[in-house]
Amino acid sequence: MNLNKNNVRVVLVGTTHPGNIGATARAMKTMAQKELYLVNPKTFPSAEATARATGADDILSNAKIYDDLKSAISDCDLVIATSARVRSISWPLISPRSFVEKMEQNDFTSVAIVFGRESSGLTNEEIELCNYVIKIPTSDEYNSLNLAAAVQIICYELFILNEDISVSISDNEDEALVDHEKMEQFYSHLEESMVHIGYLDKKNPGLLMHRLRRLFNRALVKESEWRILRGFLSKIYKN
Amino acid sequence: MNLNKNNVRVVLVGTTHPGNIGATARAMKTMAQKELYLVNPKTFPSAEATARATGADDILSNAKIYDDLKSAISDCDLVIATSARVRSISWPLISPRSFVEKMEQNDFTSVAIVFGRESSGLTNEEIELCNYVIKIPTSDEYNSLNLAAAVQIICYELFILNEDISVSISDNEDEALVDHEKMEQFYSHLEESMVHIGYLDKKNPGLLMHRLRRLFNRALVKESEWRILRGFLSKIYKN
Repeated sequence: MNLNKNNVRVVLVGTTHPGNIGATARAMKTMAQKELYLVNPKTFPSAEATARATGADDILSNAKIYDDLKSAISDCDLVIATSARVRSISWPLISPRSFVEKMEQNDFTSVAIVFGRESSGLTNEEIELCNYVIKIPTSDEYNSLNLAAAVQIICYELFILNEDISVSISDNEDEALVDHEKMEQFYSHLEESMVHIGYLDKKNPGLLMHRLRRLFNRALVKESEWRILRGFLSKIYKN
Repeated sequence: MNLNKNNVRVVLVGTTHPGNIGATARAMKTMAQKELYLVNPKTFPSAEATARATGADDILSNAKIYDDLKSAISDCDLVIATSARVRSISWPLISPRSFVEKMEQNDFTSVAIVFGRESSGLTNEEIELCNYVIKIPTSDEYNSLNLAAAVQIICYELFILNEDISVSISDNEDEALVDHEKMEQFYSHLEESMVHIGYLDKKNPGLLMHRLRRLFNRALVKESEWRILRGFLSKIYKN
């Protein structure tokens, strides 16, 4: 990917509520986006926009303002419209995730994502300026996604692009896991302790140890936790 | 997956701005979520919340209100905290996407996602009631995600779960996880047992219980395992 994924132009067309412009700036900044383009905003600048931006007002003060969508996207080689509705116009629809995959697979130099008016979205003429329409998945019963919420979702998808999300669990404590041998020492100690206090009958062990192994193996025990467990068992039975 | 992914409890703790409660209801409804739980909201119900809900006011009128987080999640078998910060407390961190993968791979019966106060998030005590912390990825320079925007991202990830992705992997053992209340019974019993045999000094507890909670919360304990642990502890100390 040539394009810096954090330099995607967010274009708001005909926004009515200045609060939504501020909330959009905030949504962008949390996801490391910077370039806000406003096409014919009803009220801008405005105190309400600045208030809702909550510290992302640099994005507001750097926003570029245009009279029509065409001028705002003239230098872009990928322009994406967004919609929460099924539209009368037939245009290639993609999901947010397939959009970011597309970003990854092609060498775009300048990408714009276009968000329409709160009440009526984009006109057919505006959509025809775009390469694709992103349909953000929503409930069939209620698709009234707030403007800044739609921006948040798209910018979030861009932000996590190429992040290593396959790492499922991490811990902000950099602590080693115990090795197999130590776990075996623990399981022996646990078994002896259970026998000692009469909870486990060696002649009739059933699935007790099997279930406990499943539990503790699943947990991936850390050094400090292992020491606690061993300390506890030592008070029951010295092995 | 037993659980209907559209029946995840959204729990807001100590929300200050009623507008955020309304915006949360709207965010939930676009993604087909219904169950809103409010713990100690500063102002609720409120006209501002209803205005910002924009047609999602059924979610507001069905919202359940509690005095503390513990009561709001007592019957849940998976409780997830959310955070945009790196926290002082060490607790297993997962990404939004790995959370929904976890949803897919396990048979939870009741899941809660907990969102903290606008200014200060969740307390360490509240986080210790949770199995995992979701860290929503944000820019290093600016992580001030609006409350409803955070809800929107998580509900979006849940909504698109299984949309594109093929058949899920499952645990092939169809066994229920224990709920929060039972885990608390276990922790009390564990603590009393450790005090009884002289391993834990109530006056000087250190991080013992904290570490053990982290371990067992991470493991997502099943019914049969819980019975074994309780049975073992009963041989040490009858509670």
